[in-house]
Amino acid sequence: MNAIDNTHNPALRSWVETANEPASDFPVQNLPFGRFKVEDDPEWRIGVAIGDQVLDLRAAGLIHFSDMNRLIRLKPETRRELRAQISAGLAAGSPQQDRWSRHLHPQGAVELGLPCDIRDYTDFYVGIHHATAVGKLFRPDNPLLPNYKWVPIGYHGRASTIQPSGHSFHRPLGQIKGPDTDAPMLAPTKRLDLELELGYVIGRPNAMGHPIPLAEAEDHVFGVTLFNDWSARDFQAWEYQPLGPFLSKNFASTLSPWMVTLEALAPFRQALQRPAGDPPPLPYLRAEASERAGAFDIDLDVLLQTARMRAEGHEPEVISRSNAAQAAYWSLAQLVTHHTVNGCALSAGDLFGSGTLSGPKPEQAGSLLELTVGGKQAITLGNGERRTFLEDGDSITLRGRCTRTGFQSIGFGECTATVLPPLGAI
Amino acid sequence: MNAIDNTHNPALRSWVETANEPASDFPVQNLPFGRFKVEDDPEWRIGVAIGDQVLDLRAAGLIHFSDMNRLIRLKPETRRELRAQISAGLAAGSPQQDRWSRHLHPQGAVELGLPCDIRDYTDFYVGIHHATAVGKLFRPDNPLLPNYKWVPIGYHGRASTIQPSGHSFHRPLGQIKGPDTDAPMLAPTKRLDLELELGYVIGRPNAMGHPIPLAEAEDHVFGVTLFNDWSARDFQAWEYQPLGPFLSKNFASTLSPWMVTLEALAPFRQALQRPAGDPPPLPYLRAEASERAGAFDIDLDVLLQTARMRAEGHEPEVISRSNAAQAAYWSLAQLVTHHTVNGCALSAGDLFGSGTLSGPKPEQAGSLLELTVGGKQAITLGNGERRTFLEDGDSITLRGRCTRTGFQSIGFGECTATVLPPLGAI
Repeated sequence: MNAIDNTHNPALRSWVETANEPASDFPVQNLPFGRFKVEDDPEWRIGVAIGDQVLDLRAAGLIHFSDMNRLIRLKPETRRELRAQISAGLAAGSPQQDRWSRHLHPQGAVELGLPCDIRDYTDFYVGIHHATAVGKLFRPDNPLLPNYKWVPIGYHGRASTIQPSGHSFHRPLGQIKGPDTDAPMLAPTKRLDLELELGYVIGRPNAMGHPIPLAEAEDHVFGVTLFNDWSARDFQAWEYQPLGPFLSKNFASTLSPWMVTLEALAPFRQALQRPAGDPPPLPYLRAEASERAGAFDIDLDVLLQTARMRAEGHEPEVISRSNAAQAAYWSLAQLVTHHTVNGCALSAGDLFGSGTLSGPKPEQAGSLLELTVGGKQAITLGNGERRTFLEDGDSITLRGRCTRTGFQSIGFGECTATVLPPLGAI
Repeated sequence: MNAIDNTHNPALRSWVETANEPASDFPVQNLPFGRFKVEDDPEWRIGVAIGDQVLDLRAAGLIHFSDMNRLIRLKPETRRELRAQISAGLAAGSPQQDRWSRHLHPQGAVELGLPCDIRDYTDFYVGIHHATAVGKLFRPDNPLLPNYKWVPIGYHGRASTIQPSGHSFHRPLGQIKGPDTDAPMLAPTKRLDLELELGYVIGRPNAMGHPIPLAEAEDHVFGVTLFNDWSARDFQAWEYQPLGPFLSKNFASTLSPWMVTLEALAPFRQALQRPAGDPPPLPYLRAEASERAGAFDIDLDVLLQTARMRAEGHEPEVISRSNAAQAAYWSLAQLVTHHTVNGCALSAGDLFGSGTLSGPKPEQAGSLLELTVGGKQAITLGNGERRTFLEDGDSITLRGRCTRTGFQSIGFGECTATVLPPLGAI
């Protein structure tokens, strides 16, 4: 757990004026890390977002390398020193202003990429309201499986198709089997869905055979992103027995460009909610500190913009609002410890998806599967359009924001992608 | 499909004398690729196995780089040229003998590593006898799920814990729940198993959004290895619903060091066996060429050596003999095409596990789960020891061998690892 220090001081202002606008996701109290490219240079650079700018860390003399997977494995104390340096240098009145201002680039003028090279990707299932709602669609009598409150359920996903925000993808083809036919057919998915998730980026690795104890687990995490785990529900229903989802998930996932560090998130931690009467976690997953501040109080929005809305100049429309702390049954530390309890080796650049973070109320659902009750109750948009699942041309944007009295609000930037029509059959 | 050319000529002999021994896995007709290190040089080198030696390809002037992931993505025609060059140079009477003999290293004197950097790892489930036998243990009335004969079932696995042959691993800890208790406990697995698989290494990538048609699928595969997908059956039974196996599989997998190329395997292809009456594959998975030569006629052995056998000087003992062609329901080409039909991008260095390749008879099973009928019928070894699942100190070795009249037999080398005692609880 990270202590709150002067980098969180709400009175701090930056000499980058756009960082001081109340609605900015990137005030000087945030300082998330990402990768960017500038025109005429094919190499990724390491940057920190400040207001509507990005600071080139190497050019500013703060680091002497360009490999983000090297930066994220820095020791926690070294990371905190780097954060303190960046915070001091970007603060109003800093003597660095003259020099560093030459190494700022407008975010709108650079290419933002994946924040690091993604190694292994694991998707968890910590959203208990999601697990319950989806379970209800398949097993009305027994929505939550008996292992859910004991095992932080997770499975391995596909790293090669994780794209940075702004990259679109084609509606995938796959096998679909209707309830009334004997044979499946190959067709574009008719039940294309989003999944509202957080993405946790692993920084410090562990050696194979050496589990990470709960008390040390967060030292192995670098930062938090927004993550959309696109899903083809019709493929999923047909393929997932007995080994889990595969082609229903691995055609595309979208990751936001900025890793908001655990240091920046320190003021927004709160107790993990485990309902009274639930079994306590097994000892390896139990620690007072983890329970006291295991959750992230992050407000999460899902926005939809249809092709028609875009053509008519309408902004994306919020279709769901959730909150990570209200959604998660397991803490990030519990995920790290559970993942390694068998000796599994984590690497710098591994990505954990949280699982869909639906809030407790139906309108807080993090997927259309839930919002439309399995596609049976369409939602109606402001312009009268209706949706059960996503149509070609639809864009989904995820946003996240942390707010707490006495602290400067911080945000996560955007996680956006658009559904393109299917490519022809093969 | 690769044509049979002079590199397969059974009359070819090598000036490396050990390659001409009938039992050698690596005659001049094989020429598998792997990575090795020599003393005092920390860099991986690219080598080809010949008899009991390895030829350093770069030192011999055959290539000008050391990155295997670059070599495996060569175009098929370039690969075939390289193979023809190596074959000619290692053939008896070659003018290269003097020069190349300086770039041979005894395999026993070098470190053999993973044959390439593994990117995404997918495990399939093509062994229909395995799927049926395991299904029977869980669902006696309905062993094979309705999707099996339509969907080449697969799921994503963990790349970071794939180890080269010869690296041991500790018995993993995990959650186990007995049938008569309310709560699970954390304990070392009591049902540690092996899985006899082939590993297929992807060479040429495809762009995201661009499926690979069946007719082109094998152009994207570089070679075939042996693969042991260690499994903790007790963890698996408790954790796998609803998203599939996770900690029961990702603690360790073992890969053999040599990629036997599809070119080398060309003489050992045979028709894929799909029983009469089974539904034909959907059109995207159907092609006459694939059906005619979709299978690999590879004899596969599983050998066990217990700690006592080792102490008493007994060789490893065969506990099962199978054959890949008798085991597989889906062809390699079908796996490639199915994996990409939704637009999923494959990368050079991706690994596909075939799934457990159990033959049709019970004694041909590729796992102890099957050989011991779920742990209920122990097998007895030559020295009187009995096993249901693996004990600490047990070594498992996989071997593979292709034999066909009119051709030189080739082999795969060894895929070996030993189970070490569990580390202490965390």
